[in-house]
Amino acid sequence: MAHKIGKQTIIIDSDVGILSSAAVGSKKEGEGPLGPDFDIISDDSRFSEKTWEKAESKMQELACWKALKKAGLEMSDMDFIFSGDLLNQCIASSFNARGSGIPYIGLYGACSTFAEGVGLSAVFADSFAKNCLAVASSHFCSAERQYRFPLEYGGQRPPSAQWTATAAGAAIVSRNACSPLIKAVTFGTVEDLGINDQNNMGAAMAPAAAATLSQFFKDTYTDPSDYDLVVTGDLGFVGSNLMLKLLEKEGFFFKNNYNDCGLMLYDREKQQVDSGASGCGCSASVLSGHILPKLRDGVLKSVLALSTGALMSPTSVQQGETIPGVAHLVCFSSEKGGIF
Amino acid sequence: MAHKIGKQTIIIDSDVGILSSAAVGSKKEGEGPLGPDFDIISDDSRFSEKTWEKAESKMQELACWKALKKAGLEMSDMDFIFSGDLLNQCIASSFNARGSGIPYIGLYGACSTFAEGVGLSAVFADSFAKNCLAVASSHFCSAERQYRFPLEYGGQRPPSAQWTATAAGAAIVSRNACSPLIKAVTFGTVEDLGINDQNNMGAAMAPAAAATLSQFFKDTYTDPSDYDLVVTGDLGFVGSNLMLKLLEKEGFFFKNNYNDCGLMLYDREKQQVDSGASGCGCSASVLSGHILPKLRDGVLKSVLALSTGALMSPTSVQQGETIPGVAHLVCFSSEKGGIF
Repeated sequence: MAHKIGKQTIIIDSDVGILSSAAVGSKKEGEGPLGPDFDIISDDSRFSEKTWEKAESKMQELACWKALKKAGLEMSDMDFIFSGDLLNQCIASSFNARGSGIPYIGLYGACSTFAEGVGLSAVFADSFAKNCLAVASSHFCSAERQYRFPLEYGGQRPPSAQWTATAAGAAIVSRNACSPLIKAVTFGTVEDLGINDQNNMGAAMAPAAAATLSQFFKDTYTDPSDYDLVVTGDLGFVGSNLMLKLLEKEGFFFKNNYNDCGLMLYDREKQQVDSGASGCGCSASVLSGHILPKLRDGVLKSVLALSTGALMSPTSVQQGETIPGVAHLVCFSSEKGGIF
Repeated sequence: MAHKIGKQTIIIDSDVGILSSAAVGSKKEGEGPLGPDFDIISDDSRFSEKTWEKAESKMQELACWKALKKAGLEMSDMDFIFSGDLLNQCIASSFNARGSGIPYIGLYGACSTFAEGVGLSAVFADSFAKNCLAVASSHFCSAERQYRFPLEYGGQRPPSAQWTATAAGAAIVSRNACSPLIKAVTFGTVEDLGINDQNNMGAAMAPAAAATLSQFFKDTYTDPSDYDLVVTGDLGFVGSNLMLKLLEKEGFFFKNNYNDCGLMLYDREKQQVDSGASGCGCSASVLSGHILPKLRDGVLKSVLALSTGALMSPTSVQQGETIPGVAHLVCFSSEKGGIF
């Protein structure tokens, strides 16, 4: 049975792992370096729907459908759905869950949602659930419309800006899975070092990522060298470097085993995404389509995966608030047996 | 250890219960029939803050502070905070969690959030957490501004409309609690019978409440007569009657042991709230301030408490979508020993 060690880390003792996962993206994601790793790419960013919001819900539906198909399971085999997105009132997720007939646990963690959902799924599967579905999504057009300007406005982007991924990822978290197994989960605290620039989300989230990672290392008496890869959600170029500096101050150093989903999804130069990718769909799709399969194949043996969220809204920014961040961590291993 | 029975119900086997709870409201809530049950009432609906959104966050903070004080605990004694609200990107919750230093698990379940948070807290406490804090809030003014019109517009309210409570509730869910204990949790499915009237949320949520209750009765082989009280979140007058009719069709009848937090919070006639109260803060405050203390004192021995949420957004309604609902259930008992 799961138990807590140190200040924040939950050790998952049963053989809980990822049965299957799937990633869905659109044209830009298909043209990026990870294009071949996506299960479904649609050049039509509306996914044959009338609105971008409905398209985002459709992406979640496709990701779930594909993950279920890979596992040879039906929706009715799932015990719970954990999902969330960036849209006001998380409509992409609730409209996807409608019609599933499966208990729905709605999450809001901004871009930290995927790790939050996988982490909660692991806790449930460790105790009483057989199969849980963790899903998250984002859509460039619905996010631009909601957070910034109408697309037609064509606002200038500063170099620290990130590009919201049009993507969804779904993973089936299951008891008695073979590989990859979930060994631990660390839910993060809300951190705020006073960033107030909506075009610099990476910097706003970096302290939260550093706090969660640092606490995980302390709780487990491990350090970066114990893992094949440590991957953050969507810190981008600016945020990743800040996080590394914050961790160096605490004595944690990386040797070519750190990356960020926001730096992996697109070719930053060719695809003009400035500091990198962002959105709930960024870490959801990169983990589901690229990292988890590498763990399953044994190419990677141990991975710490973090999704990172900026917990602001246009209203909070207009009211002069700074931008707090949160980061949740899931520790994956391709093999049975202890890491800690 | 928790186990699942039937299709959806989680039985909590350890002695997990409510250590303390607290309710915060404003002038209208103080003037209602449950006024004396609130721990903190502020006649200033801004709670000395500059905006209604910041006031809502302040209400969460006060509810947490009061619940902790009653239990003789500090925030640092909490292992996790589960919270959510109705504001875009759930800013009331994330800004309250900022500075707590406690792992934050953000939820979006619309007005079903409080039961969702208490239910997740019970799962965590049953397994590895000592103390979890479940919090939810709503604010009439921030909700009107976001969902409907500026307050100054003074729009006409149809009789099916409900009044968003300016209220917050917080409960500490703890292992080895004495009373009330949490015996079971049923997370609900997303139900949609095609209601598309934003001024008739009760009707939109009634099918979800009926589905969760009916499934719980089937899963546990119990019926309404086994409980002192079955209380829903914020169905109001219209929704409550619809839910009772839906349950009667399935053979479940109540004998004066059903009520709805949305019908309890205000005097519908004198306080002109039409169909009743609504908002995450409605069930959060009525449960925290009124129902849980009655269980603790043994006045009530067994209660099924549901929070009910309408999963729409202004955007989804504008795009012609109907309004899906979800309802989560927590089964409380004032005594040790089995109900099932």
